Amino acid sequence: MSNIEKTVLALDAHGGDQGLAVSVPAALAALKAEPGLEICLVGKEGELEKALSSSGSMHQDRLHIHHAATELAMDAKPADVLRRGRESSMWKAFERVASGRASACVSCGNTSAMMVTGVKLLGTLPGIQRPALMAYAPSLGGQTGLLDLGANLEVRAEQLVQFAVMGSVTARQADGLTSPRVGLLNVGHEDSKGHAIVREAQAMLQDLPLNYTGFIEGHDIFAGTVDIAVCDGFTGNLVLKSAEGLARMFLTEVRGALESNLLSRMGGWLAAPALRRMVARFDPAAHNGAPLLGLNGVAVKSHGGADVPGLTRAILEAGREAQRQVPRRIEASIHEYQLETT
Amino acid sequence: MSNIEKTVLALDAHGGDQGLAVSVPAALAALKAEPGLEICLVGKEGELEKALSSSGSMHQDRLHIHHAATELAMDAKPADVLRRGRESSMWKAFERVASGRASACVSCGNTSAMMVTGVKLLGTLPGIQRPALMAYAPSLGGQTGLLDLGANLEVRAEQLVQFAVMGSVTARQADGLTSPRVGLLNVGHEDSKGHAIVREAQAMLQDLPLNYTGFIEGHDIFAGTVDIAVCDGFTGNLVLKSAEGLARMFLTEVRGALESNLLSRMGGWLAAPALRRMVARFDPAAHNGAPLLGLNGVAVKSHGGADVPGLTRAILEAGREAQRQVPRRIEASIHEYQLETT
Repeated sequence: MSNIEKTVLALDAHGGDQGLAVSVPAALAALKAEPGLEICLVGKEGELEKALSSSGSMHQDRLHIHHAATELAMDAKPADVLRRGRESSMWKAFERVASGRASACVSCGNTSAMMVTGVKLLGTLPGIQRPALMAYAPSLGGQTGLLDLGANLEVRAEQLVQFAVMGSVTARQADGLTSPRVGLLNVGHEDSKGHAIVREAQAMLQDLPLNYTGFIEGHDIFAGTVDIAVCDGFTGNLVLKSAEGLARMFLTEVRGALESNLLSRMGGWLAAPALRRMVARFDPAAHNGAPLLGLNGVAVKSHGGADVPGLTRAILEAGREAQRQVPRRIEASIHEYQLETT
Repeated sequence: MSNIEKTVLALDAHGGDQGLAVSVPAALAALKAEPGLEICLVGKEGELEKALSSSGSMHQDRLHIHHAATELAMDAKPADVLRRGRESSMWKAFERVASGRASACVSCGNTSAMMVTGVKLLGTLPGIQRPALMAYAPSLGGQTGLLDLGANLEVRAEQLVQFAVMGSVTARQADGLTSPRVGLLNVGHEDSKGHAIVREAQAMLQDLPLNYTGFIEGHDIFAGTVDIAVCDGFTGNLVLKSAEGLARMFLTEVRGALESNLLSRMGGWLAAPALRRMVARFDPAAHNGAPLLGLNGVAVKSHGGADVPGLTRAILEAGREAQRQVPRRIEASIHEYQLETT
């Protein structure tokens, strides 16, 4: 990655299935990879000090600890977060961003807890009712941004439109595309296909100054026909996780096929460098780290089950998003689309 | 495949993007592969006779023509089908099944047209409000049946329950599993996850004599943790088509990687037999042919864009479904589940 200027990130050290066992080594790996980063580990002070001293590692001059007395359960509900979550490591990490002491926060905690905490502490941008999770999937042409990935299980048509605008602005401003192609996921390309919400959203999208290409189908995500694919969070979550499951299964089976006999082992050995490049593109961990677009601040969600390389990738992604000031760029462009403010 | 007893299938010859150019050679290929099959090509008599005479092929003693004056447009809406579709090749193919002159019908036409025609001419089984499309995806353990794939874009909780029962009965009776594991697709495994409809469906499923394993996530489809994965048709369609798109992209990139230089070409050549077995499992065309479960008769939907091998596969699948009398088996088992009759 290109080096980034000095950027402070707040990392929810207790989020995720494995807590400090993953978050501490991932923070150290990110500091090693990116000299411009400074990380504030947010969590129980005693446990963090112990984990850091036993790691005995370098780069600790750019690593700080910010105490949080509690941690959220992985199945914490939004109401629990608001009622009892204010001393949690996730809440305290978002507070660092809200107060300006960090440029971005990262958590492996659950999506709905991040949504409620983010909306409460950072607020949403003007014209955006609900933030959306966005991530990139590999495609034949390069990559496709997919949103929402689970922050909004049920959506109204105007929310799909807001997701389309945020995706387009992100692809334009942050990824450097001049006119990102935006599609709305549906069960067919024809105007008559789909339920009322997607048809209503399509009618609204056709009136906006977006490069809206119309309804797309599931296979278009990977065919490279659009740069941004929009859907509700229930569908997006299932599409993303099933694609990740299929990719993992595929990689397992390619390895199995190449080890099945002596000839295929020799073949696999000869083809290994070429295959490795391909495998890297499909490895779900290489795509970990999804921003909650629409918040007035940068917050990146990592998979709850992320391993050290996966969380490291999400931390570095948060550094890039902070550097590019994605929320400011969305805010600056969103008036072009004349979305109604809530 | 194992040989099946004499079975007559009705094939909608005009359905699909390529009409007779695919349906006629696919019918001939299916007859060649399966000596027990007899196929009634339903479509415009003159065009069919011309296509058959120019094919100059074998097996024509088991191939008949049944005239239909019109064909449905690929974007025909349900209301159009009922109003103007009664002379169409799809309608006439379903009529062959309704009258008992064919044991199953196959069409590449659109899903909603097949739904309305099937419900009108064949009716639904007792206890089933709406039929559902089901297909198998490859998994690490073998395969996973996924339904609904687009016949019902919006569902109520009791319809998800009916899909679960139909999937379970099919896996038990037709696929020979003694206690198929059934999961309900959701954005997380925890009871608190998801919207009201999936939570309500889960409560109802837990009370039924099914091997219901609870909520599953997208990656579980391919991990082999369940035999049947249930969801609404909007989500299922997007999950299936995105998985097909990813599989196609993966196969393209594996081929590209193995041809990228001399060493990898040699490697690919040595590993070819092992890789070919793997590729066959992932090729979407190898999984073409989804039954509309819940109809009082066998109807199999093929992809609209299926090529000759793909449609051949769907025709052979219809032959197997007819032979196993899947609707009769669902009907015979469904009383165990005490679903309310509409």
